[in-house]
Amino acid sequence: MQKKIVIISPGRDCTPWINALKKEEPNLTVEVYPEDTNRAETDFILTWNPPKNVFENYPNVKVIASMGAGIRHILKENKTPEQAEITKMDDPLLKEDMSYFVLTIALNFLRNIPLYFQQQNDEIWERKAYKRPEDISVGIMGFGNIGIKVGELLVKNKFKVRGWSKSKKSHQHIETFAGDKELNEFLKESNILVCLLPLTNETEEILSKKIFQQLPKGAYLINVGRGPHLVEEDLKNALEREQLSGAALDVFQEEPLPKEHWFWNHKKIQLTPHTASVTDPESISSQVIENLNRLKKGKKLLHTVSLEKGY
Amino acid sequence: MQKKIVIISPGRDCTPWINALKKEEPNLTVEVYPEDTNRAETDFILTWNPPKNVFENYPNVKVIASMGAGIRHILKENKTPEQAEITKMDDPLLKEDMSYFVLTIALNFLRNIPLYFQQQNDEIWERKAYKRPEDISVGIMGFGNIGIKVGELLVKNKFKVRGWSKSKKSHQHIETFAGDKELNEFLKESNILVCLLPLTNETEEILSKKIFQQLPKGAYLINVGRGPHLVEEDLKNALEREQLSGAALDVFQEEPLPKEHWFWNHKKIQLTPHTASVTDPESISSQVIENLNRLKKGKKLLHTVSLEKGY
Repeated sequence: MQKKIVIISPGRDCTPWINALKKEEPNLTVEVYPEDTNRAETDFILTWNPPKNVFENYPNVKVIASMGAGIRHILKENKTPEQAEITKMDDPLLKEDMSYFVLTIALNFLRNIPLYFQQQNDEIWERKAYKRPEDISVGIMGFGNIGIKVGELLVKNKFKVRGWSKSKKSHQHIETFAGDKELNEFLKESNILVCLLPLTNETEEILSKKIFQQLPKGAYLINVGRGPHLVEEDLKNALEREQLSGAALDVFQEEPLPKEHWFWNHKKIQLTPHTASVTDPESISSQVIENLNRLKKGKKLLHTVSLEKGY
Repeated sequence: MQKKIVIISPGRDCTPWINALKKEEPNLTVEVYPEDTNRAETDFILTWNPPKNVFENYPNVKVIASMGAGIRHILKENKTPEQAEITKMDDPLLKEDMSYFVLTIALNFLRNIPLYFQQQNDEIWERKAYKRPEDISVGIMGFGNIGIKVGELLVKNKFKVRGWSKSKKSHQHIETFAGDKELNEFLKESNILVCLLPLTNETEEILSKKIFQQLPKGAYLINVGRGPHLVEEDLKNALEREQLSGAALDVFQEEPLPKEHWFWNHKKIQLTPHTASVTDPESISSQVIENLNRLKKGKKLLHTVSLEKGY
């Protein structure tokens, strides 16, 4: 039985993926869209940001594997064939990297590092009292496998942590909240709000005035979810009214962030170029191969996604 | 027996200290130099940066207590009376705060945060690959009670840590080095060098070309010791030759850092205004009172310092 994977990811240099996959499975054939052949026989696609309606060319595809943790890029401009299962990556390094990124940014807020960077620019020597992790509650919106890992690293470093998700989770060291009903309870003591939600119709524009005004006055926002989670004008107002003290944004509606965007020059916003966690083909190609082998043997796939829930 | 403490700390608002000490010991008399009385009977002085030869006015002083962890400020322009013991503060919060500050700065280097702050200023979107804590060795120069605590927090966050001190220490999770003989061995694998040394004649100007060139190419420096540890011109050269990738400085020869100093505008240097750990009178006034009581009862004092070693 021939083992073939087609990569559909316009604009990406696919070499690291091809190398990583072939290292894992030397007999594998990897083809890259649009130079791929025999589309009627293709059963396994690996993709990021597929072009509109591209799956119409693959009537017999069985697996559409996202190259990352999110799958909205697949559904945005495509209907996926009915028989196809969609899978996401569960990259342990990605969770680990995300955890350290959030820890870094949270510590920077506590120790006023963004302020000191600006003061250095302006040649100002002025101390501002710092806070200690045990005095701070970090609220994690999106308490799935990544959110839990992030929370655990924060707890290890003495932060108080609370997690909010759609359906109730429980955790030994982290207070958990679920659904609209417990959202206010969750927000009202979150000094730092971290967005790690999947992007779905329900969570789009969730980071809005309504949420910000339930946070303690002077809270901080860290968006490491997706750009469309955030209502940008509402953030601007919350910063101006000092409802929020600052925001660290790693994801944007349009990436790279356009030159003329007001984020660039806002003193209370810190930007990073979508770098919180970057998928490493080496670390997850074994997952892709595992699912390919499961497909060939008719076994249940790993890391499948519910189209209905969107994650 | 009257209990009196004289505070000698020109230019400081001593109110927080007076309040904290009296809260601990309501019968205490606290006087502040130069308005203090009965100097011939004063036996307990609490001080930071005492004026030149001030102790000549206190012929019967028994304890000169530093308001912080260092004592060089006492010895710099003063001979201390022969019968007087010198003590330092052992502030658990100070160690904790220092640990979190070093963790923050180390994580920032790993995640390229100083670079991203500058890129935001210049409206540049450009990713640089990050590093993980487990790939980085942090070398701690000055492996005393503060250095050990800093090392332990870094180990807890998966950094590799090595400690260097004058006399050999041992530690379960941290590789230790001692003296000139093991200095090269210590330096050659330290990707981030943290200076936490006490300032003595031996350690003054220790952060110099000789040290920098033994570090791995592209290492980072964190100076949270004292300003005079660093030879500033040697740092400039090491950054220019890319022997060092960056430096975070929290302490300076003169504080506040003078306006015209070249540090302010150097792209590879991050400045903070001596804020790594700030002594909290509330958290250590009990130590001062404990030693005052020990003095009155003729018991052995705590946290005494060797004049010969200077720490």
